[in-house]
Amino acid sequence: MNKYEGYLIDLDGTMYRGTESIPEAVRFVASLRTKGIPYLFVTNNSSKTPEQVADHLKYFGIEAEKKDIFTTSMAAAEYLHENHTLTSIYVIGERGLTTALKEKGFRLTDSDPEAVIIGIDRKITYEKLAKACLSVRNGAMFFSTNGDVALPTERGLLPGNGAITSVITVSTQKEPIFIGKPHSIIMEQALKVLGIPKEKTLMIGDNYDTDILAGINVEMDTLLVHTGVTTKEALKAKEIQPTYVVDNLAEWTV
Amino acid sequence: MNKYEGYLIDLDGTMYRGTESIPEAVRFVASLRTKGIPYLFVTNNSSKTPEQVADHLKYFGIEAEKKDIFTTSMAAAEYLHENHTLTSIYVIGERGLTTALKEKGFRLTDSDPEAVIIGIDRKITYEKLAKACLSVRNGAMFFSTNGDVALPTERGLLPGNGAITSVITVSTQKEPIFIGKPHSIIMEQALKVLGIPKEKTLMIGDNYDTDILAGINVEMDTLLVHTGVTTKEALKAKEIQPTYVVDNLAEWTV
Repeated sequence: MNKYEGYLIDLDGTMYRGTESIPEAVRFVASLRTKGIPYLFVTNNSSKTPEQVADHLKYFGIEAEKKDIFTTSMAAAEYLHENHTLTSIYVIGERGLTTALKEKGFRLTDSDPEAVIIGIDRKITYEKLAKACLSVRNGAMFFSTNGDVALPTERGLLPGNGAITSVITVSTQKEPIFIGKPHSIIMEQALKVLGIPKEKTLMIGDNYDTDILAGINVEMDTLLVHTGVTTKEALKAKEIQPTYVVDNLAEWTV
Repeated sequence: MNKYEGYLIDLDGTMYRGTESIPEAVRFVASLRTKGIPYLFVTNNSSKTPEQVADHLKYFGIEAEKKDIFTTSMAAAEYLHENHTLTSIYVIGERGLTTALKEKGFRLTDSDPEAVIIGIDRKITYEKLAKACLSVRNGAMFFSTNGDVALPTERGLLPGNGAITSVITVSTQKEPIFIGKPHSIIMEQALKVLGIPKEKTLMIGDNYDTDILAGINVEMDTLLVHTGVTTKEALKAKEIQPTYVVDNLAEWTV
Protein backbone atom coordinates (compact mmCIF):
# COMPACT_ATOMS: atom_id res chain seq x y z
CA MET A 1 0.00 0.00 0.00
CA ASN A 2 1.29 3.45 -0.87
CA LYS A 3 1.06 6.63 1.16
CA TYR A 4 -1.68 8.40 -0.80
CA GLU A 5 -5.11 8.76 0.75
CA GLY A 6 -6.72 10.53 -2.21
CA TYR A 7 -6.37 11.00 -5.96
CA LEU A 8 -6.99 13.76 -8.50
CA ILE A 9 -7.31 12.14 -11.91
CA ASP A 10 -7.29 13.53 -15.45
CA LEU A 11 -9.73 12.18 -18.05
CA ASP A 12 -8.82 12.17 -21.78
CA GLY A 13 -5.54 10.29 -22.31
CA THR A 14 -5.65 8.96 -18.75
CA MET A 15 -9.08 7.31 -18.33
CA TYR A 16 -9.76 6.85 -22.07
CA ARG A 17 -8.15 7.86 -25.35
CA GLY A 18 -10.52 9.76 -27.66
CA THR A 19 -13.22 7.17 -28.36
CA GLU A 20 -11.08 4.27 -27.13
CA SER A 21 -11.25 2.60 -23.73
CA ILE A 22 -8.14 1.98 -21.56
CA PRO A 23 -8.76 -1.30 -19.63
CA GLU A 24 -6.01 -0.64 -17.05
CA ALA A 25 -7.69 2.66 -16.20
CA VAL A 26 -11.10 1.02 -15.80
CA ARG A 27 -9.59 -1.53 -13.35
CA PHE A 28 -7.70 1.23 -11.51
CA VAL A 29 -10.91 3.17 -10.78
CA ALA A 30 -12.68 -0.06 -9.78
CA SER A 31 -9.91 -0.68 -7.19
CA LEU A 32 -10.29 2.84 -5.77
CA ARG A 33 -14.03 2.28 -5.38
CA THR A 34 -13.62 -1.17 -3.84
CA LYS A 35 -11.15 0.14 -1.28
CA GLY A 36 -13.16 3.29 -0.58
CA ILE A 37 -10.28 5.64 -1.48
CA PRO A 38 -11.48 9.19 -2.28
CA TYR A 39 -10.81 10.50 -5.79
CA LEU A 40 -12.00 13.26 -8.09
CA PHE A 41 -11.82 13.48 -11.86
CA VAL A 42 -10.39 16.90 -12.77
CA THR A 43 -10.95 18.12 -16.33
CA ASN A 44 -10.25 21.24 -18.40
CA ASN A 45 -13.44 20.48 -20.33
CA SER A 46 -15.68 23.49 -19.71
CA SER A 47 -18.44 22.61 -22.16
CA LYS A 48 -20.04 19.66 -20.33
CA THR A 49 -21.94 19.52 -17.06
CA PRO A 50 -20.62 17.03 -14.47
CA GLU A 51 -23.62 14.77 -15.24
CA GLN A 52 -22.62 14.72 -18.92
CA VAL A 53 -18.98 13.94 -18.03
CA ALA A 54 -20.09 11.09 -15.73
CA ASP A 55 -22.25 9.64 -18.51
CA HIS A 56 -19.26 9.81 -20.85
CA LEU A 57 -17.14 7.83 -18.36
CA LYS A 58 -19.83 5.19 -17.99
CA TYR A 59 -19.65 4.70 -21.77
CA PHE A 60 -16.05 3.52 -21.26
CA GLY A 61 -17.04 1.17 -18.42
CA ILE A 62 -15.95 3.51 -15.62
CA GLU A 63 -18.41 3.92 -12.76
CA ALA A 64 -18.93 7.62 -12.16
CA GLU A 65 -21.50 9.97 -10.69
CA LYS A 66 -21.89 13.74 -10.74
CA LYS A 67 -20.07 14.04 -7.39
CA ASP A 68 -16.93 12.37 -8.84
CA ILE A 69 -16.45 15.06 -11.47
CA PHE A 70 -14.78 18.45 -11.16
CA THR A 71 -14.72 20.55 -14.33
CA THR A 72 -12.91 23.83 -14.92
CA SER A 73 -16.34 25.45 -15.19
CA MET A 74 -17.17 24.29 -11.64
CA ALA A 75 -13.76 25.50 -10.46
CA ALA A 76 -14.38 28.87 -12.13
CA ALA A 77 -17.82 29.29 -10.58
CA GLU A 78 -16.54 28.34 -7.12
CA TYR A 79 -13.47 30.59 -7.40
CA LEU A 80 -15.46 33.61 -8.59
CA HIS A 81 -18.00 33.02 -5.82
CA GLU A 82 -15.38 32.75 -3.05
CA ASN A 83 -12.85 35.34 -4.10
CA HIS A 84 -14.73 38.24 -5.59
CA THR A 85 -17.76 40.38 -4.90
CA LEU A 86 -18.94 39.93 -8.47
CA THR A 87 -22.62 39.53 -9.25
CA SER A 88 -22.84 40.06 -13.05
CA ILE A 89 -20.82 38.15 -15.61
CA TYR A 90 -20.69 38.10 -19.39
CA VAL A 91 -20.16 34.49 -20.45
CA ILE A 92 -18.88 33.07 -23.71
CA GLY A 93 -19.19 29.31 -23.41
CA GLU A 94 -21.32 26.20 -23.60
CA ARG A 95 -23.74 24.53 -21.22
CA GLY A 96 -21.20 23.32 -18.66
CA LEU A 97 -20.01 26.85 -17.99
CA THR A 98 -23.36 28.68 -17.99
CA THR A 99 -24.90 26.00 -15.77
CA ALA A 100 -22.06 26.12 -13.23
CA LEU A 101 -22.25 29.92 -13.00
CA LYS A 102 -26.04 29.98 -12.69
CA GLU A 103 -25.88 27.37 -9.91
CA LYS A 104 -23.69 29.78 -7.93
CA GLY A 105 -26.25 32.54 -8.38
CA PHE A 106 -24.42 34.77 -10.84
CA ARG A 107 -26.45 37.04 -13.10
CA LEU A 108 -25.39 36.37 -16.70
CA THR A 109 -25.58 39.53 -18.81
CA ASP A 110 -24.02 41.21 -21.82
CA SER A 111 -24.78 44.68 -20.49
CA ASP A 112 -22.04 46.31 -18.40
CA PRO A 113 -20.85 43.10 -16.65
CA GLU A 114 -18.34 43.19 -13.79
CA ALA A 115 -16.45 40.25 -15.28
CA VAL A 116 -16.01 38.39 -18.55
CA ILE A 117 -15.35 34.65 -18.66
CA ILE A 118 -14.65 32.60 -21.76
CA GLY A 119 -14.81 28.84 -22.22
CA ILE A 120 -14.87 26.85 -25.45
CA ASP A 121 -17.87 27.89 -27.54
CA ARG A 122 -18.43 26.11 -30.82
CA LYS A 123 -21.07 28.76 -31.58
CA ILE A 124 -18.63 31.67 -31.18
CA THR A 125 -19.51 34.81 -33.17
CA TYR A 126 -17.79 38.12 -33.88
CA GLU A 127 -20.48 39.84 -31.83
CA LYS A 128 -19.72 37.70 -28.76
CA LEU A 129 -16.00 38.49 -29.06
CA ALA A 130 -16.79 42.18 -29.65
CA LYS A 131 -18.90 42.35 -26.48
CA ALA A 132 -16.16 40.63 -24.48
CA CYS A 133 -13.52 43.07 -25.79
CA LEU A 134 -15.67 46.12 -25.07
CA SER A 135 -16.39 44.90 -21.52
CA VAL A 136 -12.73 44.11 -20.78
CA ARG A 137 -11.66 47.51 -22.17
CA ASN A 138 -14.37 49.01 -19.97
CA GLY A 139 -12.73 47.51 -16.86
CA ALA A 140 -14.45 44.14 -16.44
CA MET A 141 -12.29 41.43 -14.87
CA PHE A 142 -11.23 38.80 -17.41
CA PHE A 143 -11.21 35.04 -16.82
CA SER A 144 -10.68 32.04 -19.09
CA THR A 145 -11.56 28.45 -18.20
CA ASN A 146 -8.34 27.12 -19.71
CA GLY A 147 -5.49 27.92 -22.06
CA ASP A 148 -5.62 24.73 -24.15
CA VAL A 149 -4.61 25.76 -27.67
CA ALA A 150 -5.89 22.66 -29.45
CA LEU A 151 -8.87 20.37 -29.04
CA PRO A 152 -8.25 16.76 -30.16
CA THR A 153 -11.12 15.45 -32.32
CA GLU A 154 -11.57 12.74 -34.92
CA ARG A 155 -11.09 15.48 -37.58
CA GLY A 156 -7.71 16.51 -36.10
CA LEU A 157 -6.66 19.30 -33.74
CA LEU A 158 -9.28 22.05 -33.71
CA PRO A 159 -8.87 25.43 -31.99
CA GLY A 160 -9.06 25.14 -28.19
CA ASN A 161 -10.30 27.70 -25.72
CA GLY A 162 -6.82 29.15 -25.25
CA ALA A 163 -6.70 30.00 -28.95
CA ILE A 164 -10.15 31.66 -28.90
CA THR A 165 -9.24 33.50 -25.69
CA SER A 166 -6.29 35.06 -27.52
CA VAL A 167 -8.68 37.18 -29.62
CA ILE A 168 -9.59 39.13 -26.49
CA THR A 169 -6.06 39.10 -25.06
CA VAL A 170 -4.45 40.31 -28.29
CA SER A 171 -7.13 42.93 -28.97
CA THR A 172 -7.32 44.42 -25.45
CA GLN A 173 -3.70 43.68 -24.40
CA LYS A 174 -5.09 42.30 -21.13
CA GLU A 175 -4.23 38.81 -19.91
CA PRO A 176 -7.01 36.71 -18.38
CA ILE A 177 -6.82 34.81 -15.13
CA PHE A 178 -6.78 31.18 -16.26
CA ILE A 179 -8.69 28.67 -14.13
CA GLY A 180 -7.80 25.29 -15.66
CA LYS A 181 -4.72 23.05 -15.55
CA PRO A 182 -1.76 23.79 -15.44
CA HIS A 183 -2.93 26.81 -13.44
CA SER A 184 -3.41 26.44 -9.71
CA ILE A 185 -7.00 27.59 -9.25
CA ILE A 186 -8.65 24.36 -10.47
CA MET A 187 -6.25 22.27 -8.34
CA GLU A 188 -6.82 24.26 -5.16
CA GLN A 189 -10.58 24.05 -5.67
CA ALA A 190 -10.41 20.33 -6.42
CA LEU A 191 -8.39 19.64 -3.28
CA LYS A 192 -11.05 21.43 -1.21
CA VAL A 193 -13.78 19.26 -2.73
CA LEU A 194 -11.75 16.06 -2.28
CA GLY A 195 -11.10 16.97 1.37
CA ILE A 196 -7.70 15.26 1.66
CA PRO A 197 -4.53 17.28 2.42
CA LYS A 198 -2.44 17.79 -0.74
CA GLU A 199 0.55 16.08 0.90
CA LYS A 200 -1.51 12.87 0.94
CA THR A 201 -3.01 13.29 -2.54
CA LEU A 202 -1.56 12.20 -5.89
CA MET A 203 -2.29 13.95 -9.21
CA ILE A 204 -2.49 11.51 -12.13
CA GLY A 205 -2.44 12.52 -15.79
CA ASP A 206 -1.04 11.84 -19.26
CA ASN A 207 -0.17 15.41 -20.24
CA TYR A 208 2.96 16.92 -18.72
CA ASP A 209 2.15 20.48 -19.74
CA THR A 210 -1.29 20.51 -18.15
CA ASP A 211 -1.76 17.68 -15.59
CA ILE A 212 1.76 17.27 -14.24
CA LEU A 213 2.58 20.98 -14.24
CA ALA A 214 -0.70 21.63 -12.44
CA GLY A 215 0.38 19.24 -9.68
CA ILE A 216 3.87 20.75 -9.55
CA ASN A 217 2.39 24.26 -9.38
CA VAL A 218 0.49 23.42 -6.19
CA GLU A 219 3.39 21.33 -4.81
CA MET A 220 1.63 17.98 -5.01
CA ASP A 221 3.14 14.64 -5.94
CA THR A 222 2.40 13.63 -9.53
CA LEU A 223 2.14 10.47 -11.58
CA LEU A 224 2.54 10.62 -15.37
CA VAL A 225 0.94 7.77 -17.27
CA HIS A 226 2.12 7.18 -20.84
CA THR A 227 -1.30 6.38 -22.30
CA GLY A 228 -1.92 9.80 -23.83
CA VAL A 229 -0.20 12.99 -24.97
CA THR A 230 3.29 13.06 -23.41
CA THR A 231 5.78 10.59 -24.91
CA LYS A 232 8.84 9.22 -23.08
CA GLU A 233 11.00 11.23 -25.47
CA ALA A 234 9.15 14.48 -24.71
CA LEU A 235 9.28 13.77 -20.99
CA LYS A 236 13.11 13.49 -21.05
CA ALA A 237 13.35 17.15 -22.08
CA LYS A 238 11.42 18.40 -19.03
CA GLU A 239 13.49 19.96 -16.30
CA ILE A 240 11.20 19.05 -13.39
CA GLN A 241 10.21 15.38 -13.57
CA PRO A 242 6.94 13.89 -12.26
CA THR A 243 7.20 12.08 -8.92
CA TYR A 244 6.31 8.79 -10.66
CA VAL A 245 6.07 7.60 -14.26
CA VAL A 246 4.22 4.47 -15.46
CA ASP A 247 3.34 2.99 -18.84
CA ASN A 248 -0.21 2.30 -17.69
CA LEU A 249 -2.17 2.30 -14.45
CA ALA A 250 -1.85 -1.49 -13.92
CA GLU A 251 1.63 -0.58 -12.65
CA TRP A 252 0.22 1.51 -9.78
CA THR A 253 -1.20 -0.28 -6.76
CA VAL A 254 -3.60 1.58 -4.49
CA MET B 1 7.53 72.84 -54.61
CA ASN B 2 8.89 69.77 -52.83
CA LYS B 3 10.83 66.88 -54.31
CA TYR B 4 8.07 64.24 -54.25
CA GLU B 5 6.52 63.12 -57.53
CA GLY B 6 4.04 60.70 -56.00
CA TYR B 7 2.15 59.98 -52.76
CA LEU B 8 0.92 56.92 -50.89
CA ILE B 9 -1.82 58.05 -48.52
CA ASP B 10 -3.55 56.37 -45.59
CA LEU B 11 -7.31 56.75 -45.13
CA ASP B 12 -8.89 56.65 -41.63
CA GLY B 13 -7.27 59.28 -39.39
CA THR B 14 -5.56 60.87 -42.39
CA MET B 15 -8.34 61.57 -44.95
CA TYR B 16 -11.23 61.44 -42.44
CA ARG B 17 -11.73 60.60 -38.79
CA GLY B 18 -14.37 57.93 -38.24
CA THR B 19 -17.53 59.59 -39.54
CA GLU B 20 -15.99 63.07 -39.47
CA SER B 21 -14.52 64.96 -42.43
CA ILE B 22 -11.04 66.59 -42.32
CA PRO B 23 -11.26 69.76 -44.50
CA GLU B 24 -7.46 70.13 -44.85
CA ALA B 25 -7.30 66.57 -46.22
CA VAL B 26 -10.06 67.28 -48.74
CA ARG B 27 -8.16 70.36 -49.99
CA PHE B 28 -4.87 68.41 -50.07
CA VAL B 29 -6.30 65.77 -52.40
CA ALA B 30 -7.92 68.47 -54.55
CA SER B 31 -4.45 70.05 -54.96
CA LEU B 32 -2.89 66.75 -56.02
CA ARG B 33 -5.62 66.31 -58.63
CA THR B 34 -5.34 69.87 -59.93
CA LYS B 35 -1.58 69.53 -60.34
CA GLY B 36 -1.81 66.03 -61.82
CA ILE B 37 0.46 64.50 -59.17
CA PRO B 38 0.06 60.69 -58.94
CA TYR B 39 -1.20 59.25 -55.65
CA LEU B 40 -2.72 56.07 -54.30
CA PHE B 41 -4.80 55.53 -51.16
CA VAL B 42 -3.33 52.56 -49.27
CA THR B 43 -5.57 50.89 -46.70
CA ASN B 44 -5.44 47.90 -44.35
CA ASN B 45 -9.22 47.56 -44.81
CA SER B 46 -9.69 44.14 -46.38
CA SER B 47 -13.47 44.00 -46.22
CA LYS B 48 -14.37 46.54 -48.87
CA THR B 49 -13.86 46.49 -52.63
CA PRO B 50 -11.98 49.49 -54.10
CA GLU B 51 -15.30 50.75 -55.52
CA GLN B 52 -16.80 50.72 -52.01
CA VAL B 53 -13.76 52.54 -50.57
CA ALA B 54 -13.97 55.20 -53.33
CA ASP B 55 -17.67 55.72 -52.57
CA HIS B 56 -16.80 56.14 -48.89
CA LEU B 57 -14.25 58.86 -49.75
CA LYS B 58 -16.77 60.69 -51.92
CA TYR B 59 -19.04 60.85 -48.86
CA PHE B 60 -16.36 63.00 -47.20
CA GLY B 61 -16.04 65.26 -50.26
CA ILE B 62 -12.89 63.58 -51.60
CA GLU B 63 -12.91 62.80 -55.30
CA ALA B 64 -11.90 59.16 -55.77
CA GLU B 65 -12.30 56.36 -58.27
CA LYS B 66 -11.59 52.63 -58.12
CA LYS B 67 -8.11 53.16 -59.67
CA ASP B 68 -7.10 55.50 -56.79
CA ILE B 69 -7.60 52.79 -54.14
CA PHE B 70 -5.23 50.03 -53.07
CA THR B 71 -6.52 47.72 -50.34
CA THR B 72 -4.63 45.03 -48.46
CA SER B 73 -6.91 42.52 -50.19
CA MET B 74 -5.70 43.74 -53.60
CA ALA B 75 -2.09 43.61 -52.35
CA ALA B 76 -2.64 40.06 -51.09
CA ALA B 77 -4.17 38.87 -54.35
CA GLU B 78 -1.38 40.45 -56.41
CA TYR B 79 1.36 39.11 -54.12
CA LEU B 80 -0.02 35.56 -54.09
CA HIS B 81 -0.42 35.69 -57.86
CA GLU B 82 3.14 36.92 -58.51
CA ASN B 83 5.12 35.03 -55.91
CA HIS B 84 3.60 31.60 -55.59
CA THR B 85 2.32 28.80 -57.78
CA LEU B 86 -0.83 28.57 -55.71
CA THR B 87 -4.16 27.87 -57.35
CA SER B 88 -6.47 26.94 -54.43
CA ILE B 89 -7.04 29.08 -51.36
CA TYR B 90 -9.24 28.81 -48.28
CA VAL B 91 -10.49 32.30 -47.46
CA ILE B 92 -11.88 33.72 -44.27
CA GLY B 93 -12.96 37.26 -45.05
CA GLU B 94 -15.52 39.62 -46.45
CA ARG B 95 -16.34 40.80 -49.95
CA GLY B 96 -13.22 42.89 -50.54
CA LEU B 97 -10.95 39.89 -50.06
CA THR B 98 -12.97 37.23 -51.88
CA THR B 99 -13.52 39.60 -54.84
CA ALA B 100 -9.81 40.48 -55.12
CA LEU B 101 -8.79 36.82 -55.06
CA LYS B 102 -11.42 35.75 -57.59
CA GLU B 103 -10.33 38.56 -59.93
CA LYS B 104 -6.83 37.04 -59.96
CA GLY B 105 -8.26 33.66 -60.89
CA PHE B 106 -7.79 31.79 -57.62
CA ARG B 107 -10.05 28.87 -56.83
CA LEU B 108 -11.61 29.44 -53.40
CA THR B 109 -12.17 26.16 -51.56
CA ASP B 110 -12.36 24.68 -48.07
CA SER B 111 -11.17 21.30 -49.29
CA ASP B 112 -7.40 20.67 -49.13
CA PRO B 113 -6.33 24.23 -50.08
CA GLU B 114 -2.70 25.10 -50.83
CA ALA B 115 -3.01 28.29 -48.77
CA VAL B 116 -5.16 29.89 -46.10
CA ILE B 117 -5.75 33.64 -45.97
CA ILE B 118 -7.65 35.50 -43.30
CA GLY B 119 -9.08 39.02 -43.38
CA ILE B 120 -11.61 40.59 -41.05
CA ASP B 121 -14.85 38.58 -41.11
CA ARG B 122 -17.74 39.82 -39.01
CA LYS B 123 -19.45 36.48 -39.76
CA ILE B 124 -16.59 34.40 -38.31
CA THR B 125 -17.58 30.98 -36.98
CA TYR B 126 -15.84 28.21 -35.07
CA GLU B 127 -16.13 26.02 -38.15
CA LYS B 128 -14.29 28.57 -40.34
CA LEU B 129 -11.48 28.80 -37.76
CA ALA B 130 -11.41 25.00 -37.43
CA LYS B 131 -11.03 24.56 -41.20
CA ALA B 132 -8.24 27.15 -41.28
CA CYS B 133 -6.39 25.41 -38.43
CA LEU B 134 -6.74 21.96 -40.01
CA SER B 135 -5.45 23.28 -43.36
CA VAL B 136 -2.48 25.10 -41.82
CA ARG B 137 -1.60 22.00 -39.76
CA ASN B 138 -1.89 20.03 -42.99
CA GLY B 139 0.81 22.21 -44.59
CA ALA B 140 -1.14 25.01 -46.29
CA MET B 141 0.68 28.35 -46.48
CA PHE B 142 -0.77 30.91 -44.08
CA PHE B 143 -1.42 34.57 -44.88
CA SER B 144 -3.21 37.37 -43.07
CA THR B 145 -4.32 40.66 -44.64
CA ASN B 146 -3.18 42.66 -41.61
CA GLY B 147 -2.24 42.46 -37.96
CA ASP B 148 -4.49 45.28 -36.68
CA VAL B 149 -5.59 44.22 -33.20
CA ALA B 150 -8.46 46.68 -32.85
CA LEU B 151 -11.07 48.12 -35.20
CA PRO B 152 -12.26 51.63 -34.27
CA THR B 153 -16.07 51.88 -34.42
CA GLU B 154 -18.72 54.12 -32.88
CA ARG B 155 -19.22 51.36 -30.23
CA GLY B 156 -15.53 51.44 -29.27
CA LEU B 157 -12.55 49.29 -30.23
CA LEU B 158 -13.74 45.94 -31.58
CA PRO B 159 -11.48 42.97 -32.38
CA GLY B 160 -9.40 43.57 -35.52
CA ASN B 161 -8.12 41.01 -37.98
CA GLY B 162 -4.84 40.61 -36.12
CA ALA B 163 -6.77 39.48 -33.05
CA ILE B 164 -8.85 36.97 -35.02
CA THR B 165 -5.73 35.75 -36.83
CA SER B 166 -4.21 34.88 -33.45
CA VAL B 167 -6.70 32.00 -33.02
CA ILE B 168 -4.94 30.20 -35.89
CA THR B 169 -1.43 31.32 -34.87
CA VAL B 170 -1.87 30.28 -31.23
CA SER B 171 -3.57 26.99 -32.08
CA THR B 172 -1.17 25.84 -34.83
CA GLN B 173 1.96 27.62 -33.54
CA LYS B 174 2.53 28.87 -37.11
CA GLU B 175 2.96 32.57 -37.87
CA PRO B 176 1.24 33.97 -40.95
CA ILE B 177 2.82 36.15 -43.60
CA PHE B 178 1.17 39.53 -43.01
CA ILE B 179 0.35 41.61 -46.10
CA GLY B 180 -0.82 44.96 -44.67
CA LYS B 181 0.93 47.96 -43.09
CA PRO B 182 3.41 48.05 -41.33
CA HIS B 183 4.57 45.04 -43.33
CA SER B 184 6.36 45.63 -46.62
CA ILE B 185 4.26 43.59 -49.02
CA ILE B 186 1.41 46.11 -49.36
CA MET B 187 3.92 48.96 -49.79
CA GLU B 188 5.94 47.22 -52.48
CA GLN B 189 2.76 46.34 -54.35
CA ALA B 190 1.41 49.89 -54.00
CA LEU B 191 4.65 51.40 -55.34
CA LYS B 192 4.39 49.17 -58.41
CA VAL B 193 0.83 50.34 -59.05
CA LEU B 194 1.75 54.00 -58.46
CA GLY B 195 4.66 53.67 -60.88
CA ILE B 196 6.93 56.26 -59.23
CA PRO B 197 10.33 55.28 -57.71
CA LYS B 198 10.13 55.05 -53.93
CA GLU B 199 12.88 57.69 -53.56
CA LYS B 200 10.46 60.19 -55.12
CA THR B 201 7.36 59.04 -53.24
CA LEU B 202 6.13 60.15 -49.81
CA MET B 203 4.09 57.95 -47.46
CA ILE B 204 1.48 59.95 -45.50
CA GLY B 205 -0.39 58.64 -42.48
CA ASP B 206 -1.61 59.32 -38.95
CA ASN B 207 -0.59 56.05 -37.31
CA TYR B 208 3.10 55.62 -36.50
CA ASP B 209 2.84 51.88 -35.86
CA THR B 210 1.23 51.07 -39.19
CA ASP B 211 1.65 53.89 -41.75
CA ILE B 212 4.98 55.37 -40.74
CA LEU B 213 6.62 52.04 -39.90
CA ALA B 214 5.41 50.70 -43.25
CA GLY B 215 7.24 53.56 -44.99
CA ILE B 216 10.34 53.07 -42.85
CA ASN B 217 10.31 49.33 -43.56
CA VAL B 218 10.57 49.91 -47.31
CA GLU B 219 13.00 52.84 -46.84
CA MET B 220 10.66 55.56 -48.07
CA ASP B 221 10.30 59.09 -46.72
CA THR B 222 7.30 59.50 -44.43
CA LEU B 223 4.99 62.26 -43.23
CA LEU B 224 3.08 61.85 -39.99
CA VAL B 225 -0.06 63.96 -39.71
CA HIS B 226 -1.49 64.50 -36.21
CA THR B 227 -5.15 64.18 -37.20
CA GLY B 228 -5.59 60.60 -36.04
CA VAL B 229 -4.11 57.90 -33.82
CA THR B 230 -0.55 58.94 -32.94
CA THR B 231 -0.28 61.83 -30.47
CA LYS B 232 2.75 64.16 -30.19
CA GLU B 233 3.49 62.59 -26.81
CA ALA B 234 3.46 59.05 -28.24
CA LEU B 235 5.61 60.13 -31.18
CA LYS B 236 8.36 61.43 -28.87
CA ALA B 237 8.93 57.90 -27.56
CA LYS B 238 9.67 56.48 -31.03
CA GLU B 239 13.29 55.81 -31.80
CA ILE B 240 13.08 56.34 -35.56
CA GLN B 241 11.20 59.55 -36.34
CA PRO B 242 9.14 60.23 -39.49
CA THR B 243 10.85 62.36 -42.15
CA TYR B 244 8.23 65.07 -41.60
CA VAL B 245 5.54 65.81 -39.01
CA VAL B 246 2.58 68.19 -39.46
CA ASP B 247 -0.52 69.03 -37.45
CA ASN B 248 -2.70 68.83 -40.55
CA LEU B 249 -2.20 68.60 -44.30
CA ALA B 250 -2.68 72.37 -44.86
CA GLU B 251 0.95 72.57 -43.69
CA TRP B 252 2.19 70.49 -46.63
CA THR B 253 2.46 72.12 -50.06
CA VAL B 254 2.54 69.88 -53.11
